[in-house]
Amino acid sequence: MDQIRRVLIVGGTHGNEWTGVYLVKKLQRSPHLATRQSFTTHTLIANPQAHELGRRYVDSDLNRCFCQVDLENLALVTYEHQRAREIVQIYGTNGQTPVDFTIDVHSTTANMGQTVILRDTNSFSLQLAAYLSHSNPAIKILASAPSSKGKLYLDSISAFGCTVEVGAVAQGVLNAALFQQTEDLVNAILDFAEAYNCQPHNLPSPGTAVDLYQSWQTVDYPKNDQGELLAMVHPQLQFADYQPLHPGDPMFLTFAGDTLAYTGDCVVYPIFINEAAYYEKAIALRLTQTHTMVITP
Amino acid sequence: MDQIRRVLIVGGTHGNEWTGVYLVKKLQRSPHLATRQSFTTHTLIANPQAHELGRRYVDSDLNRCFCQVDLENLALVTYEHQRAREIVQIYGTNGQTPVDFTIDVHSTTANMGQTVILRDTNSFSLQLAAYLSHSNPAIKILASAPSSKGKLYLDSISAFGCTVEVGAVAQGVLNAALFQQTEDLVNAILDFAEAYNCQPHNLPSPGTAVDLYQSWQTVDYPKNDQGELLAMVHPQLQFADYQPLHPGDPMFLTFAGDTLAYTGDCVVYPIFINEAAYYEKAIALRLTQTHTMVITP
Repeated sequence: MDQIRRVLIVGGTHGNEWTGVYLVKKLQRSPHLATRQSFTTHTLIANPQAHELGRRYVDSDLNRCFCQVDLENLALVTYEHQRAREIVQIYGTNGQTPVDFTIDVHSTTANMGQTVILRDTNSFSLQLAAYLSHSNPAIKILASAPSSKGKLYLDSISAFGCTVEVGAVAQGVLNAALFQQTEDLVNAILDFAEAYNCQPHNLPSPGTAVDLYQSWQTVDYPKNDQGELLAMVHPQLQFADYQPLHPGDPMFLTFAGDTLAYTGDCVVYPIFINEAAYYEKAIALRLTQTHTMVITP
Repeated sequence: MDQIRRVLIVGGTHGNEWTGVYLVKKLQRSPHLATRQSFTTHTLIANPQAHELGRRYVDSDLNRCFCQVDLENLALVTYEHQRAREIVQIYGTNGQTPVDFTIDVHSTTANMGQTVILRDTNSFSLQLAAYLSHSNPAIKILASAPSSKGKLYLDSISAFGCTVEVGAVAQGVLNAALFQQTEDLVNAILDFAEAYNCQPHNLPSPGTAVDLYQSWQTVDYPKNDQGELLAMVHPQLQFADYQPLHPGDPMFLTFAGDTLAYTGDCVVYPIFINEAAYYEKAIALRLTQTHTMVITP
């Protein structure tokens, strides 16, 4: 792609993640804040019904509704499956107002600070990652695991996309400091898109190394045969997202007070530790590995 | 009352406050943990349907359904109004298994540490407060404001009652450290009840001073004419529950980045700061004042 013509900023893909919803509302009131010279910026509250209800979703997780097979399967008629089709019909590659780059803004109850999740690791995404890391070393870059179902996520509706995750913040709450961090991060991504269009020579060049966390595998909570929780995330691991976890380190604490250790054989970097929305997905945390990639020409 | 014969420990009055739910489940699996010689202990998950749905309530807030007028008004037929009647019919003063003392276990997204809310400040409650403060000075004692509607709360179904609030923890999440703090606090309350029955001479005596926070008034978020939020809790105030707030101190931060100050004329001690469940109740925080009371004979 030569130029980014349209950028879409999305909030409220999960209705109880208020940071994105209120950031989008702010940008809708003050569109100049997201305006750059070389592209137009659109904004979207993706799941307004779920937000109205104060829930993550109405019927099913909207951010798992964007694989092509599901979009084409008209037998899937939940609110979110229909909403996904509407969004693709408006902003998708063959939609009414196709966008080139989607920024989907989320929040998490895990202590993930300012995280950018890359959908893939093509040179555009790695340039973005290098640009953001340089602008603020606190920003974490996460490469998501390829899904067996293909492109599930909302940020896959356009040629380029990324997801922003900021936390720790409870669902249904605005934390002002994290709101500002989210706004800063979205601004930095918009600045990158502007530089990509107007000053590509100023962007990180091919050959530049990019440090990132590569999503690897998930770990469920210990459960009994009835599927009931037997343990909680260990206090030493709670809020320790992105910190190294060594074999033998505490991972869970049973209700009886016993510590269960991490039994893997390599150092990992857990993320989404104790994310509220992931209990139902049987995910206590996600393990990542550090990885250095190089921007290709 | 001469003796406490039955104690009721309640969790899940709000279905998405998991600490109480899982503490009650633990005590149901291991009842000896809540057993004391001089009384029997009962346990209850108060709002199982809401917990199943992962929500605070199904139709209405169960912890506002216990005033006598509402209990007697059979036109009130929400799930929670009916559930309140069921609970009173079982455990209420004129119920099948009347309890003498109710401990209702809650959690909060505010940074309230280990808080015990006293329904009233009779000598029993003040003795309990003095006992707890002595056993652990970190425990905060909060005297709730008298409600204009009378005894609204679940802990009012018995002659004596108190509510436990522990946080900060997101809804729908177990935080192991706070779970343990909650369990410790409930154990200390059971120990008090045991001492009240068996060793009253060892309890704080009349004349003992008790420091507590007296609930005073609530403050709503700044809103526009359509009721939309204009500001968030200021970063300096976020998680600063029980810390003194002086006239002129920052209270809110508007989405435009302007600080709004506390405009009162006396030092206050805010609590329930940015509690997720209170946005819908038009409460950004509750102001308290410090107060010293004396146990009366």
